Amino acid sequence: MKRAAFQKRTADLREKLKRVPPDAAWIIQPENRRYLSGFKAEDPQLNESSGSLLITRKTNFLITDSRYETEARKEAPDFDVTLFNKGLLEGLPDLLHRLRTKKLGFEEDHLTWGLHGQLAKKFRKLVPPVRLSPLKGLVEEMRVVKDKDEIKAMAASAKLMAEILGEVIETLDPERSEKDIAWQIEGLAREGGAEDLAFPSIVAAGPNGALPHAVPSKRKLGTGKPIVLDVGLKLGGYCCDMTRTIFLGKPEPRFKKIYKIVRKAQLAALKEIRPGIESTYPDSIAREVIKDAGFGAYFGHSLGHGVGLATHERPRLSPQGPTVLKEGMVVTVEPGIYLPGKGGVRLEEMVVITKNGPRILTTDAHFYDF
Amino acid sequence: MKRAAFQKRTADLREKLKRVPPDAAWIIQPENRRYLSGFKAEDPQLNESSGSLLITRKTNFLITDSRYETEARKEAPDFDVTLFNKGLLEGLPDLLHRLRTKKLGFEEDHLTWGLHGQLAKKFRKLVPPVRLSPLKGLVEEMRVVKDKDEIKAMAASAKLMAEILGEVIETLDPERSEKDIAWQIEGLAREGGAEDLAFPSIVAAGPNGALPHAVPSKRKLGTGKPIVLDVGLKLGGYCCDMTRTIFLGKPEPRFKKIYKIVRKAQLAALKEIRPGIESTYPDSIAREVIKDAGFGAYFGHSLGHGVGLATHERPRLSPQGPTVLKEGMVVTVEPGIYLPGKGGVRLEEMVVITKNGPRILTTDAHFYDF
Repeated sequence: MKRAAFQKRTADLREKLKRVPPDAAWIIQPENRRYLSGFKAEDPQLNESSGSLLITRKTNFLITDSRYETEARKEAPDFDVTLFNKGLLEGLPDLLHRLRTKKLGFEEDHLTWGLHGQLAKKFRKLVPPVRLSPLKGLVEEMRVVKDKDEIKAMAASAKLMAEILGEVIETLDPERSEKDIAWQIEGLAREGGAEDLAFPSIVAAGPNGALPHAVPSKRKLGTGKPIVLDVGLKLGGYCCDMTRTIFLGKPEPRFKKIYKIVRKAQLAALKEIRPGIESTYPDSIAREVIKDAGFGAYFGHSLGHGVGLATHERPRLSPQGPTVLKEGMVVTVEPGIYLPGKGGVRLEEMVVITKNGPRILTTDAHFYDF
Repeated sequence: MKRAAFQKRTADLREKLKRVPPDAAWIIQPENRRYLSGFKAEDPQLNESSGSLLITRKTNFLITDSRYETEARKEAPDFDVTLFNKGLLEGLPDLLHRLRTKKLGFEEDHLTWGLHGQLAKKFRKLVPPVRLSPLKGLVEEMRVVKDKDEIKAMAASAKLMAEILGEVIETLDPERSEKDIAWQIEGLAREGGAEDLAFPSIVAAGPNGALPHAVPSKRKLGTGKPIVLDVGLKLGGYCCDMTRTIFLGKPEPRFKKIYKIVRKAQLAALKEIRPGIESTYPDSIAREVIKDAGFGAYFGHSLGHGVGLATHERPRLSPQGPTVLKEGMVVTVEPGIYLPGKGGVRLEEMVVITKNGPRILTTDAHFYDF
């Protein structure tokens, strides 16, 4: 991302803070932190932070410790890198007192109840006291619509993943195991320059394909039954997410049948994706196709989800929680049919919503035209 | 782990619950969950749970969704696997009401402020209401002292890591890059049967070695300067953590000097590790050796930390927060000296504390006897 992007984002956040109560926002969620500052470090463990941001009306602070100082200064040049030598519980109250902050916005879906309580106790003792106020997903909301450079980054991420998956599909063999394929994908992702996988690859053959969340096993791929490959990588911080279902040998008729239905549902949903419609609508279209074909009970999950710095983010394409789709949102479209104990089919594209409808980032290749 | 281990652990927790206020414990922290139940699934994202446990005076529940049902039943045979079809916010109040729970213990260092608030609101509406009460690290405390089977698992994890690191050290070459070595380690770990790395490997040559938290780069290993290899893997759920510092070619005198000091500090600290002493004591011993040699300012971190299902857990071996060391604790001993912009040396063993002192799990090999 360009330096100007981070400058714009922090300025936007500052504008929003003028309209809502807190006079400073404390950002601890790793993707929000990276989105606003460019600071790339991940958190080593849930209870170990590599840093946080404090965006006040005037200044951007990046609070970290000596281990991350060098990276912080390099990656977030518009932030005032601040080291708390005595830890957060001493440092944060001191800094806020110095800045005369009265109300601190915090991320209620990331801050633990325990740390909130410890901080609140310290803040109450300050004169004047600092009050804590939930930010209610303010930064997550900013991340939903992607700008041009973000879409470019996501297209690059999806392109690399699609190339790798294409290469892997060419080498599939009934005698190779799910695990072996998953490992091949990881190797190619790293060699291709990915920072990491976006999530552990799913390579699920036969009955394993009926588990939407399958862990690659020593099972051989075999023939005739669907092999679900649900994969994603992270490039330049941005995730991609795509799924193909592949057959080796002659597909069994019942799987060929559900494949055709899933593909029909996917194409029908894709047709309806455009700015201005409710996020529940494409899901209902896909669900109807599958239900009409008699498999309604075998499509248990949502149609899709937003993707960006996180693999799963807003908006959801599901029967619940309608929001209006907008230009620049990036979402997956991934219907599936799962026959317990037998096998499953899932097909997933990641698309960016443009005024002309969805633009597929995951290459539209490797589908069967049964 | 044997089934009996999980039975014992849940029985122990139940005993503890008799002595403290809550009449049920709700366990969402992934390592605590695995420790008590054997359920192996990880959480896909911070804000996406694969399940939770509810341990009441009478019953063990494993609450999950259809994606994890098969694994849950298999991995946690003594748990009543319960699916919440309408989600946690509906399901948990219903279940607690049915069980007549009055006070629910929760993990305050894992539950977010936001979810706590949403649940509390639902709980208040129940008749009688359910109150929330922090568990104050009850399960983390149980995990500190490892039983025989856990120590066996950790020894196996450390042995595999030490073998891999030994193999890698044999193949080091000044022309190879940090990244290349890190990737080799990951490949060998997977081939060796590891579930995952315990943390991203640190392979830090020359000036990068001065950053205790270095990310492997394209830098070539070079000669004369220390190469810090800090690595760990997860086997059977248990982590290991070890560090060696290696030289290619003739070591520069100043690095040879700090190597000798770090090794001396490590051996001095190891000598003092035994049941009954305070956790601050070995740290003070190592720190004194380094300070006496004139490098006190260049050893910025703690001497070590507990290891188990998590890479970093209790107890800490640091100048702060003394606790008494006990037989069956597993800790790292990892002093270091870091010369900014030049290079660093860190040496780390993982040991189990026995009544005869520390037993090294990480093989005691690959040290220089300068």
